[in-house]
Amino acid sequence: MKTHALDGETVHQERNNAIAPRLEIEPGDTVVFDCPEPCGQVTPDWDDEKLAKIAFESIHALIGSVYVKGAKPGDTLQAEILDYEHKGWAWSGHLQHFGLLADDFDFAYIHHWKLEGEQCIFGLKDIVLPFEPFCGCMGVAPKEPGRVTTIAPGPYGGNMDIRDLRKGGTLWLPVFVDGALFACGDCHSGQGNGELCGTGIESPMTVTLRLSLRKDLSVQEAQFETPSPLSKADTAGYHATTAHGPDLMENAKNAARYMIDWLVNRYGLTRSQAYVLCSVAADLKISEIVDAPNFIVSAYIPLSIFKK
Amino acid sequence: MKTHALDGETVHQERNNAIAPRLEIEPGDTVVFDCPEPCGQVTPDWDDEKLAKIAFESIHALIGSVYVKGAKPGDTLQAEILDYEHKGWAWSGHLQHFGLLADDFDFAYIHHWKLEGEQCIFGLKDIVLPFEPFCGCMGVAPKEPGRVTTIAPGPYGGNMDIRDLRKGGTLWLPVFVDGALFACGDCHSGQGNGELCGTGIESPMTVTLRLSLRKDLSVQEAQFETPSPLSKADTAGYHATTAHGPDLMENAKNAARYMIDWLVNRYGLTRSQAYVLCSVAADLKISEIVDAPNFIVSAYIPLSIFKK
Repeated sequence: MKTHALDGETVHQERNNAIAPRLEIEPGDTVVFDCPEPCGQVTPDWDDEKLAKIAFESIHALIGSVYVKGAKPGDTLQAEILDYEHKGWAWSGHLQHFGLLADDFDFAYIHHWKLEGEQCIFGLKDIVLPFEPFCGCMGVAPKEPGRVTTIAPGPYGGNMDIRDLRKGGTLWLPVFVDGALFACGDCHSGQGNGELCGTGIESPMTVTLRLSLRKDLSVQEAQFETPSPLSKADTAGYHATTAHGPDLMENAKNAARYMIDWLVNRYGLTRSQAYVLCSVAADLKISEIVDAPNFIVSAYIPLSIFKK
Repeated sequence: MKTHALDGETVHQERNNAIAPRLEIEPGDTVVFDCPEPCGQVTPDWDDEKLAKIAFESIHALIGSVYVKGAKPGDTLQAEILDYEHKGWAWSGHLQHFGLLADDFDFAYIHHWKLEGEQCIFGLKDIVLPFEPFCGCMGVAPKEPGRVTTIAPGPYGGNMDIRDLRKGGTLWLPVFVDGALFACGDCHSGQGNGELCGTGIESPMTVTLRLSLRKDLSVQEAQFETPSPLSKADTAGYHATTAHGPDLMENAKNAARYMIDWLVNRYGLTRSQAYVLCSVAADLKISEIVDAPNFIVSAYIPLSIFKK
């Protein structure tokens, strides 16, 4: 079993099964991916004005692809998540025309984070989140030829933004083309279930994965295992907002709005700061989906992130 | 501060602000509610055939209402959740024309549980869930006159089926009528986020709540605080299925289907047993809700419930 490295100099910004692989490995080999800042452009000196002009066509900066020898359509690719290492800095923000509450927040706002050891430091009101890293994008090449945007996830995985694809976990993805052609990127140092403003704690990061094949396993879409505890922030209880109604999307929007109100009133954050904090720390859960005509979506924020 | 008791002999099966209160209390008083089996009819000897003929019009058997002196429209009712005690038995099941996968499971199936101390014993494959009780229904009287079904939740709370309304937590509800007219019932000894087959671990139970008023607080819909850890089952990691697509409801259905497949293949459960187990143990989460046009709903099941 070998360990390979892919530097962050060469990125691709699409899913496309015609892109030539950068690396060919045996199943069971380990690959260290040096993933740049997720959008391939943001730097610690960016302000709201620069963020408003972000080049959407450059998102995301993916590292790969990796050709896994012997992988055939119908197989399952297994990615064991061995390690994530941050580089001290991250950003979050909201953008025009993007995010769950795009209608309420129709402008750009950027927030910079300091990452120190196992802490993500918000820099306001003594708010500190645990470093809980994962790759927003992990995927194989799509079945169909041609360019596919990296923004939306698909049957091939991609920009799934699942906060629990953490160290110690294992991801399974269906293989659609020879070699699987795995690529990853869009590293987050933390994020709530939902990623509701559209960004997590966006971080350049080194990602170490062991890639192998499961000929004995079949999945139609991504499945994964993740270790306990689900969150290091689950130590001091949660405040939760709820919203009921016949449409899960509208309920999610309202639960998020109530949570933003609560954060603004309780901690004196601006609405933009509260929206970003929800995105990186609050979890959207489907509390009930059967009591028609009204379903409930709740937003949970861990109280341990507030020091006072 | 007094402690009052409401027996389980007199129930009401609707939300209606015209129902005369059974009890009048001072804010800050404690009430012990003896809540019968949630549907007011199921007994340990019921089989699938009996469940198929359940009287929907008798659901739910609520205990109350409680008139809280001084409560006025616009106030917030605070319910501190002090204790839940089970009575040794519970049931789960799926019904025709009800539940997330009603199209896939168009028949009735009942499963009986044994409750022992802090354990909910499934009785198959050594599956044991922690006793994590809550009231499915907690609510005040609606603003509008007339009968409202107890099935769907509303701005007044009601059948919210939120698994984290647990001992040690606090619920806040908006008050719509003088006295608030609080009632509760539909006790569950456990349930996943979503309650996807339509039942939790349905249990007769004694519920102890301290009811008070918050004139300083305003909520548009229910909000709550819940203690850590969120689940006692978060000790051995999770298996999770994911489903992507533009519609959260369809994604939830597919994530549930994949999880049922996984449980059937891995543990040899029947599809009905697996569906019920998902409802009581698996959590539906909105993993991402911003990467249009595809969002991801995931179903997580804790591996600690499987002893082998």
